[in-house]
Amino acid sequence: MNKDHYYMKMALDLAASAKGRTNPNPVVGAILVKDGVIVGSGLHRKAGEPHAEVHAFRMAGEHAEGATLYVTLEPCSHFGKTPPCANLVKESKVARVVVAVQDPNPQVAGRGIGILREAGIEVEVGVLEKEARLLNERFVHNMVNRTPFVISKVAMTLDGKIAAYNGHSKWITGEESRHNVHLLRNEVDAILVGIGTVKADDPMLTTRLETGGKNPIRIVLDTTLRMPMEAKITDCSEAKTWIVTAEENDVAEKIKALEEKGVEFIYVPVTDSGLDLSVLMNKLYEKGVTDLLVEGGSEINGSFLRAGLINKFSIYVAPKILGGRDSLTPFTGDNVESMDEALDVTIHSVENFGEDLLITAYPKYKDN
Amino acid sequence: MNKDHYYMKMALDLAASAKGRTNPNPVVGAILVKDGVIVGSGLHRKAGEPHAEVHAFRMAGEHAEGATLYVTLEPCSHFGKTPPCANLVKESKVARVVVAVQDPNPQVAGRGIGILREAGIEVEVGVLEKEARLLNERFVHNMVNRTPFVISKVAMTLDGKIAAYNGHSKWITGEESRHNVHLLRNEVDAILVGIGTVKADDPMLTTRLETGGKNPIRIVLDTTLRMPMEAKITDCSEAKTWIVTAEENDVAEKIKALEEKGVEFIYVPVTDSGLDLSVLMNKLYEKGVTDLLVEGGSEINGSFLRAGLINKFSIYVAPKILGGRDSLTPFTGDNVESMDEALDVTIHSVENFGEDLLITAYPKYKDN
Amino acid sequence: MNKDHYYMKMALDLAASAKGRTNPNPVVGAILVKDGVIVGSGLHRKAGEPHAEVHAFRMAGEHAEGATLYVTLEPCSHFGKTPPCANLVKESKVARVVVAVQDPNPQVAGRGIGILREAGIEVEVGVLEKEARLLNERFVHNMVNRTPFVISKVAMTLDGKIAAYNGHSKWITGEESRHNVHLLRNEVDAILVGIGTVKADDPMLTTRLETGGKNPIRIVLDTTLRMPMEAKITDCSEAKTWIVTAEENDVAEKIKALEEKGVEFIYVPVTDSGLDLSVLMNKLYEKGVTDLLVEGGSEINGSFLRAGLINKFSIYVAPKILGGRDSLTPFTGDNVESMDEALDVTIHSVENFGEDLLITAYPKYKDN
Amino acid sequence: MNKDHYYMKMALDLAASAKGRTNPNPVVGAILVKDGVIVGSGLHRKAGEPHAEVHAFRMAGEHAEGATLYVTLEPCSHFGKTPPCANLVKESKVARVVVAVQDPNPQVAGRGIGILREAGIEVEVGVLEKEARLLNERFVHNMVNRTPFVISKVAMTLDGKIAAYNGHSKWITGEESRHNVHLLRNEVDAILVGIGTVKADDPMLTTRLETGGKNPIRIVLDTTLRMPMEAKITDCSEAKTWIVTAEENDVAEKIKALEEKGVEFIYVPVTDSGLDLSVLMNKLYEKGVTDLLVEGGSEINGSFLRAGLINKFSIYVAPKILGGRDSLTPFTGDNVESMDEALDVTIHSVENFGEDLLITAYPKYKDN
Ligand SMILES: [Zn+2]
Ligand SMILES: [Zn+2]
Ligand SMILES: [Zn+2]
Ligand SMILES: [Zn+2]
Repeated sequence: MNKDHYYMKMALDLAASAKGRTNPNPVVGAILVKDGVIVGSGLHRKAGEPHAEVHAFRMAGEHAEGATLYVTLEPCSHFGKTPPCANLVKESKVARVVVAVQDPNPQVAGRGIGILREAGIEVEVGVLEKEARLLNERFVHNMVNRTPFVISKVAMTLDGKIAAYNGHSKWITGEESRHNVHLLRNEVDAILVGIGTVKADDPMLTTRLETGGKNPIRIVLDTTLRMPMEAKITDCSEAKTWIVTAEENDVAEKIKALEEKGVEFIYVPVTDSGLDLSVLMNKLYEKGVTDLLVEGGSEINGSFLRAGLINKFSIYVAPKILGGRDSLTPFTGDNVESMDEALDVTIHSVENFGEDLLITAYPKYKDN
Repeated sequence: MNKDHYYMKMALDLAASAKGRTNPNPVVGAILVKDGVIVGSGLHRKAGEPHAEVHAFRMAGEHAEGATLYVTLEPCSHFGKTPPCANLVKESKVARVVVAVQDPNPQVAGRGIGILREAGIEVEVGVLEKEARLLNERFVHNMVNRTPFVISKVAMTLDGKIAAYNGHSKWITGEESRHNVHLLRNEVDAILVGIGTVKADDPMLTTRLETGGKNPIRIVLDTTLRMPMEAKITDCSEAKTWIVTAEENDVAEKIKALEEKGVEFIYVPVTDSGLDLSVLMNKLYEKGVTDLLVEGGSEINGSFLRAGLINKFSIYVAPKILGGRDSLTPFTGDNVESMDEALDVTIHSVENFGEDLLITAYPKYKDN
Repeated sequence: MNKDHYYMKMALDLAASAKGRTNPNPVVGAILVKDGVIVGSGLHRKAGEPHAEVHAFRMAGEHAEGATLYVTLEPCSHFGKTPPCANLVKESKVARVVVAVQDPNPQVAGRGIGILREAGIEVEVGVLEKEARLLNERFVHNMVNRTPFVISKVAMTLDGKIAAYNGHSKWITGEESRHNVHLLRNEVDAILVGIGTVKADDPMLTTRLETGGKNPIRIVLDTTLRMPMEAKITDCSEAKTWIVTAEENDVAEKIKALEEKGVEFIYVPVTDSGLDLSVLMNKLYEKGVTDLLVEGGSEINGSFLRAGLINKFSIYVAPKILGGRDSLTPFTGDNVESMDEALDVTIHSVENFGEDLLITAYPKYKDN
Repeated sequence: MNKDHYYMKMALDLAASAKGRTNPNPVVGAILVKDGVIVGSGLHRKAGEPHAEVHAFRMAGEHAEGATLYVTLEPCSHFGKTPPCANLVKESKVARVVVAVQDPNPQVAGRGIGILREAGIEVEVGVLEKEARLLNERFVHNMVNRTPFVISKVAMTLDGKIAAYNGHSKWITGEESRHNVHLLRNEVDAILVGIGTVKADDPMLTTRLETGGKNPIRIVLDTTLRMPMEAKITDCSEAKTWIVTAEENDVAEKIKALEEKGVEFIYVPVTDSGLDLSVLMNKLYEKGVTDLLVEGGSEINGSFLRAGLINKFSIYVAPKILGGRDSLTPFTGDNVESMDEALDVTIHSVENFGEDLLITAYPKYKDN
């Protein structure tokens, strides 16, 4: 491993620790090296807090002069809650900057690097770029698409069943997998289910981890507002609940009652295939949702699939064969006529969680 | 790796090359080592041909005296087409015999080893036993159960679909996977599908490999004898076809016409859930079928699943998400009420074939 | 890898970057983790600068409360240039402290940990202890023995020759090895040779690295003060030179001339086997030399060997066989009568540098 | 690993087991594969016994037709103790032959392959060639040079010493290394030491292995016939002893006495630097010595080194530092004036034997 890879890996490791905690910002790590000694290190911990570079330069002090900065993302060039890091880097008199990946925001990509180069600083871009992109896949998607990064999470048997015909599904996967799902919930801004799931299972959809953890916003698709008043999810004391319903719903009273419990409403138009998910995605992003965990229901999964809105598949496979003529499967939605209508994906990894597998896949959309 | 492991691995590698070609016999490899030099090597290539030990001793000649024999299966102790190998080993004056695994046939297990020990030969049993058992999983099953070893082969999308609602399924998996299926066909005695598959796809079910390959017997479950006379599978010029039908079928004329084309018939009683598969398994084993590849339809897969007859699952997973409300799934059969009715399996391996995965799993039957 | 190992490895990696730059202090790294996010990171860069913990707490700010501190060495408990870190940790309200290794100084070992435990903080000691000890092998030796850590560096042919009979030795090893030696010089406080080497090769003994690097103090053993006035090493403009000579030398004029050039003198008694190296070691440590690279001459190497003063062997082996009746060998000194007089060592590692090997070994002294 | 590599590796593994037992012949392994099944396997066990191909074809019988032959060395083309294998292969009707390496004998290289190609058999040469050459390094040397393959074996301390000044050397290396030396003796035709070693240590130079093993011919260089009559090595009851002495020696009586004990004599001219080793090498090869382990004294090692006669270095390095002004080193001989006179070698491998290292190196002679 050459030196540049070594230090960039270290910066990526620092950044990775904050995964899911910096929304809507990216995770970023920075390392400053002078004469082989790490003189500064830092990461961006949370929106509103200092950028990674700021921590690294604070620690380095005068040692920054002549040093090399390793940073996992192009230093920012705009005045936000903090002054632009590109300026800070420029003033620090570092000799060289190694950047893993350009800013994915097409409107500012390359600007920070440009500022540095103009200042006579040697800049190298692309060291461990692939790893850096993967680490910030949510942020990269946001910047390019201005919609939430949608993760479809499924727990199924080895023969592709998620429940018996009657909805019985406890428990498909083992403890390790279920724990991992709570880690995932802890990282995302919001989680989405259908009203069917709420009525069948009455779930809390909160994050249960020994160390506490952050609850995502709970979003329920409920076209005709069938939400039971006593559903646990309507208790907003620990976590927010948003109900997505049809614009034309005429149930003002029920809405008011739910709003009094703290529930918020989002109204979207209804199309032939139900609530307009594209409109919803735009609204959610405007409301600050940068990533969304879709936890199902066959029909809702199918709608997201057909709408081409899924950005990542996290499929937990339990070592069981269920069978059963009417057992439920992970993705349904409108019928398809041929195998050619399937969405091609790339299987990124297969991991073991206890006796289960977690298959992670990314869609190959035609226009990507 | 110690010496015993080294030579036993070599014997297993020799044996492995004949996998699927020795039915109904097991695959066996043998290595004779004297003073560190391999003086003999051999394997059992095919039923009716010499046992592995015979080849090894022929090559060794007088060098066998005082040598160590590594053999992947307990030497046979009965007079069959050839005299018992245990006697041959005894007369060869080897000093030591290392056996990977005892004969799985409960009626003769340990007899060969007994003969050797009585002759004063040092015998060690259990070196690489797990690997040896796996290599002969078909034979081990046959000896213990006196039924064919049943492999359920499935090709499905990542969301557990095997076809669109209309049966369209071309192509789920890629070329590498399909090639691997032909390697599998090349190894088994018989392949089984339902009449539904025959009517829908009109398949040949022959082995297509560059190097030729052996065609399995093609078995069709056809309770009410709906087989079209012009189905390709009724052409028995290249491969045998057996039709399994209900005992009470009153269609002597059609039967006669098919028999004239070379088709054989097996009659089994009908139970509430269709043809009695347990009876069928016994009949097939009596007719010399030692392993059976079940390639067929959701309902047939489901029947084998519910009957507890599957011994191994080979599940090819294509990198596609299909969805679709009525898409077909790999195992259906009678409905199940709860996740508790699922068959627990052990995921043995996950391999890559091109962009597909092959997940191999073994059932955990309660009484095993 | 569990979490504790993961974060301690990260702290060790931070610390490692300052190896050789913190003398007389140890290298130390620290990581602060809260709810899975790294909220602080730091290392000790140089004597006189903040300790690792200080950097980590500065970056963490209020996030330190309830966090876990990973630190590669027990936090200090004495008031030095900085207030004791143990107090800082205590006041930071961290919930847990994971320490790789106790302070090796027998006078204070365990005190820092004691302060933390009394404050009710959970402390775990010994995570990656072996790695942490190795990283600070110089400091551990200093604390226990109060003498410099002595590294014997040898460059020899595969048949154990360091020069032809006439001293010709250019070049035994290749460029990569020689570069590595300069990295080593860059890390140590002082380098020691005999006057024979000075007279034969007239070396500079400075560090030559692209990035500059730090020159060690150059120490010459010169019992009878045979140092040529024009020797390059007497030029003290870039690096210090110390001459070790016999107490009773009566050459005040030459000494004065050399002192005018900037050379310093250390006087030690003479024993039967030459200058008293044990006395010298004590004097060097008092003068602040914490580690010493002994670069040779066969006789000097032999003297250090016989005196039991070597703490580490770095033996570069070139892919050459030299032969030659009177060729020089790496260690000579007084004759030995039997193989039993050899010093047993542990071969720690064999690394490749270009076509050369670097064999690193540690002595097994009886009383260790 | 592709199929050709897989089967060739298996053939090499078979061949390797006979290493050191086939002199003057090479080791050879052969595998016959038909339709994926190994139908024949064999190796050459010993001079005078069948070639590898013969065993493989015997086992294969009629299955050889259309098969692929994997053989580690070009099939022989001359009538020796057995008819040429090239003819056998031709008649066997195999479809394809894969050869690791051509026959190294420049007089017949390519002939066997030519015979096969003319017969219309597809031949591929060079699969795992490097491994095959290394396995037969002794034979390759013999064929090209018509002299014994000379292995210089040394056991030294980490500082390149083989004994104290007084010759004391028990024990430098540990048990594992010494056992490995006996495995080496078991493989070579002859072992060579100087009379100095005989007078100092009175060694047996026999092979001591639990499993017996073969004694090499013991060759003593003794220019002026100083051999003590009572030296253990003059007892020829278990192993042969050859004394190499100057042509002009006038000690007929002593020679006669030794000859009566079974010792043989080889007379060679004396040059300025002692017995003419080149003449000796030719005489030894004529007498059937194909490989020679030089275990001897610093001076003899030095003479072989200067004469450019060593083909392989096996250097055992013990974890000890001996030092000592007059300690003995592995290679001496005439003095060298400069590092440029060193023999460059390639370090092939560094292995662990207990706590010792075994460094294996090959000389880079200018004209190779
Ligand atoms: Zn910034
Ligand atoms: Zn047998
Ligand atoms: Zn401190
Ligand atoms: Zn031959």
